[in-house]
Amino acid sequence: MIKAIFLIQSPDSKGILASVTNFFSERDFNILHCQQHTDSYEKRFFMRIELDADDMKTTRKELEDEFGVLASSLGLDWSCHWSDYKTRMAILVSKTGHCLYDLISRQLEGELNAEIPLIISNHPDMEKAANQFRIPYYYFPMTEGKEKQEEKVRNLLKRFDIDLVVLARYMQILSPEFIEEWRGRIINIHHAFLPAFQGANPYLRAYERGVKMIGATAHYASEDLDQGPIIEQDVIRVNHELTPSGLKEVGKDSEKRTLAAAVKAHLEHRVIIYKNRTIVFSVER
Amino acid sequence: MIKAIFLIQSPDSKGILASVTNFFSERDFNILHCQQHTDSYEKRFFMRIELDADDMKTTRKELEDEFGVLASSLGLDWSCHWSDYKTRMAILVSKTGHCLYDLISRQLEGELNAEIPLIISNHPDMEKAANQFRIPYYYFPMTEGKEKQEEKVRNLLKRFDIDLVVLARYMQILSPEFIEEWRGRIINIHHAFLPAFQGANPYLRAYERGVKMIGATAHYASEDLDQGPIIEQDVIRVNHELTPSGLKEVGKDSEKRTLAAAVKAHLEHRVIIYKNRTIVFSVER
Amino acid sequence: MIKAIFLIQSPDSKGILASVTNFFSERDFNILHCQQHTDSYEKRFFMRIELDADDMKTTRKELEDEFGVLASSLGLDWSCHWSDYKTRMAILVSKTGHCLYDLISRQLEGELNAEIPLIISNHPDMEKAANQFRIPYYYFPMTEGKEKQEEKVRNLLKRFDIDLVVLARYMQILSPEFIEEWRGRIINIHHAFLPAFQGANPYLRAYERGVKMIGATAHYASEDLDQGPIIEQDVIRVNHELTPSGLKEVGKDSEKRTLAAAVKAHLEHRVIIYKNRTIVFSVER
Amino acid sequence: MIKAIFLIQSPDSKGILASVTNFFSERDFNILHCQQHTDSYEKRFFMRIELDADDMKTTRKELEDEFGVLASSLGLDWSCHWSDYKTRMAILVSKTGHCLYDLISRQLEGELNAEIPLIISNHPDMEKAANQFRIPYYYFPMTEGKEKQEEKVRNLLKRFDIDLVVLARYMQILSPEFIEEWRGRIINIHHAFLPAFQGANPYLRAYERGVKMIGATAHYASEDLDQGPIIEQDVIRVNHELTPSGLKEVGKDSEKRTLAAAVKAHLEHRVIIYKNRTIVFSVER
Repeated sequence: MIKAIFLIQSPDSKGILASVTNFFSERDFNILHCQQHTDSYEKRFFMRIELDADDMKTTRKELEDEFGVLASSLGLDWSCHWSDYKTRMAILVSKTGHCLYDLISRQLEGELNAEIPLIISNHPDMEKAANQFRIPYYYFPMTEGKEKQEEKVRNLLKRFDIDLVVLARYMQILSPEFIEEWRGRIINIHHAFLPAFQGANPYLRAYERGVKMIGATAHYASEDLDQGPIIEQDVIRVNHELTPSGLKEVGKDSEKRTLAAAVKAHLEHRVIIYKNRTIVFSVER
Repeated sequence: MIKAIFLIQSPDSKGILASVTNFFSERDFNILHCQQHTDSYEKRFFMRIELDADDMKTTRKELEDEFGVLASSLGLDWSCHWSDYKTRMAILVSKTGHCLYDLISRQLEGELNAEIPLIISNHPDMEKAANQFRIPYYYFPMTEGKEKQEEKVRNLLKRFDIDLVVLARYMQILSPEFIEEWRGRIINIHHAFLPAFQGANPYLRAYERGVKMIGATAHYASEDLDQGPIIEQDVIRVNHELTPSGLKEVGKDSEKRTLAAAVKAHLEHRVIIYKNRTIVFSVER
Repeated sequence: MIKAIFLIQSPDSKGILASVTNFFSERDFNILHCQQHTDSYEKRFFMRIELDADDMKTTRKELEDEFGVLASSLGLDWSCHWSDYKTRMAILVSKTGHCLYDLISRQLEGELNAEIPLIISNHPDMEKAANQFRIPYYYFPMTEGKEKQEEKVRNLLKRFDIDLVVLARYMQILSPEFIEEWRGRIINIHHAFLPAFQGANPYLRAYERGVKMIGATAHYASEDLDQGPIIEQDVIRVNHELTPSGLKEVGKDSEKRTLAAAVKAHLEHRVIIYKNRTIVFSVER
Repeated sequence: MIKAIFLIQSPDSKGILASVTNFFSERDFNILHCQQHTDSYEKRFFMRIELDADDMKTTRKELEDEFGVLASSLGLDWSCHWSDYKTRMAILVSKTGHCLYDLISRQLEGELNAEIPLIISNHPDMEKAANQFRIPYYYFPMTEGKEKQEEKVRNLLKRFDIDLVVLARYMQILSPEFIEEWRGRIINIHHAFLPAFQGANPYLRAYERGVKMIGATAHYASEDLDQGPIIEQDVIRVNHELTPSGLKEVGKDSEKRTLAAAVKAHLEHRVIIYKNRTIVFSVER
């Protein structure tokens, strides 16, 4: 079944929900799933609506245009997504492969509605992994200068028509220009429970602080390091038996699962960003 | 703010969501929260809608009557609840008090939208606790015969205008007549992760089976022991260091929290029962 | 069964474990539980040993003295505790009672090896709760000046022979003198997952940061606010539906359970402090 | 550092701990980690001791022989393991690859102290995955008869000097002879929280029962299906939005992580089996 998914946000006001559901009801759509959330603190309306698009009577363009007219009259911010489109996802990685392997194997198992046209790295270490799966691997060392290196990365993303960039333990800070160009389309995994332990060496600092749980945070990249909108977080209980390197090893599980959950939410068009927060809708499976 | 909450279910068909949201939109209600779920496996539609009822233009009766007309035409099962009504909740208990204390203290802290007009027990042990909180305590020993004892309990529930019966570790099996009369209004806590370890002595059996997690299950009581619709479940990780009595002690935390969450979901009108399953809607807080 | 519990720490060196176990074996003790941990990062040895003391052939004093001789020769820091002594625990509270109710009801249920001789507060709100349980309640408002108020609190703790002070949502910062006098014997509950959201209003800040989990941290109080050695942490998954006040309400569950677990670990003599970290041994139950 | 690990069990009696620690102390070993557990319900003693074996003054054989003498005199069951030996692990799989991919990538990342000399399957589906990682893949269809097929599998395991068999979603019941030959050396992943939902189609039955959590269980295989000693369990919270196939998809994460944790515990010699239960020691990292 082909599905159409609309993501909508606007200032809160009466009648939006009825107007939107009417719009699709009048066009004889079967509404598969409709979720609405009003943030009473921010006075803001959020909505995700999923439609059976198999027997559409209009073209996709016509439907989007007509909805655009309604959205304008109601003052809605919106986007529309079609389930038969596979998001083109680039993975950026440095030296450790656990998140990379996890994403690739989930994609192979059909769990992610995405293609992985390429892997980019500032280190040669993961080339072997890329070859195993016959995914092109581009190695751009930082030795050529940060600016030049980033330019190459950005060019490649354009050339490969990439929709989503996943930083799967890519240990480089992106420039503000890169962030700006890709806002809302770069997902990073930070190996700590943000806002605790922002920045480098979180596991060592977690050890020194003596925390009893460690975690991971997947978020959209923003200009301020580790400050972007959080999509998913997870923790693992730890105890005094773990040294800093033990915490690091144990934390890998949490990183894999947190990043995968965030990427999945994005690929299923379940995430809306507002200010520095995300609304992550659940989905019937 | 006074809120009206409608719980709705019906066979799935197109247009229900639009019809219902229109109904309230036309009457100028502010829809605070609307959640819709279609079970694609059962082909069944479920909905919870929460309205700001402060400036209603009709009486409650009129609104319910009008909605009844729409519901009939669409074939909906429904109920309507008003947030300024405090559910009258009877607690039944045997010898252990952890769930009892937990429910009472949550009620005192304003966490539960309920009154606790009485506590009933087949043992005298918890009378002291009831007295501390000045809640009437009725002690009906089983020695007078199960049938007679239960009759007294049922009479008392009627006399006190009880809406909800909570079995907070009440170690007696209720008769089918009792169950039938109170269907969907008795919540029981079972001290295991159902359907594992149904029946007596679950912690001993958990020990013998060597499980690595123990749990608790809150469910609506049904004729078949520990088979009713599950509202909430929870687990705690355990290891080989726990003997059967250690498991029992550790499990108390899980029981308290599971029962409280289930009672809360019921009191907030977030639960719909269908066949032997529950739909438990989340709620904005 | 009366148990003796020894907590031991020292710089790591060969043979300590054998020497200590020999010491008790020679005296014909049954070792119920022995746990040893070497922190390879800090090169430090930690140990907890639990003995059946029912048929001791010496007095307690003699045993402690003899062990003291061994400890001196090996350079051990140690303490000895006897299971038939009930720790005298004072609870300090401000306006909210969920942790207070939880601790009292656990004590009544026999879950905590402690007495609660008094409750102290800077507000009158919880007096009713104290009266319900017939626990003396001392209300010292801050209006009389912080220094004076604290003096009264400290005098009272002395007068009541208190062993452990539990800050069960006591919203006052203690003076360095107070902290110094009671080092390692004050347990505080912070309503956030430290080191995230130190200081005031953590739930509001958690909302603004858009975290997907909130937590609680129980720690020994230290001069630096929210910086003391962590004993226990816990988190609860949250989503976009929770406003700051919703987070606060949901967080209560986590606070109760985290504080109770930490207090229990302390009362069972399972915690050793080293630098700013804790070793929390598990225990057979 | 090369480590020697001794796993010990025996009926409980005084002095074992001191005798064992003395044995190694006299031989000037540095004890890295020592864990002792007495099951007071079963009156049984369990122990794991980890030694720095870098500067051993005897051969491995001599040490084991000497320890054997002590063990005989004390009536101990024991085994000894050396950390520089890589366990040879065969993976058996049917049609789904998520556990297979997960184990292989963990092995490649250095997380598992094992080699994977071969993969065996009753289906051709996973051959591609095996080829990607250059691991020999043996496909033995059931069409040739269960007995013959199993004989081929068992011959292959012998020929490849396999130490541990991991059933990574291998959907065939092994014969009692196979089980007997490999007792304590076959780890299976069951896709449910045992003892709930033993046997086939657990996710469908979980849906029908309306559980609010699903899980996975890793256990040693035994003659009775899904009844063997449990090593590790895990659960994931689910809600009414998940259909049977949704539960299946979501459950994969739990299966991967549970199986990996169990395999890791086995490879690190942290598991002792007694009756139908396991003692799983933790380990400093």
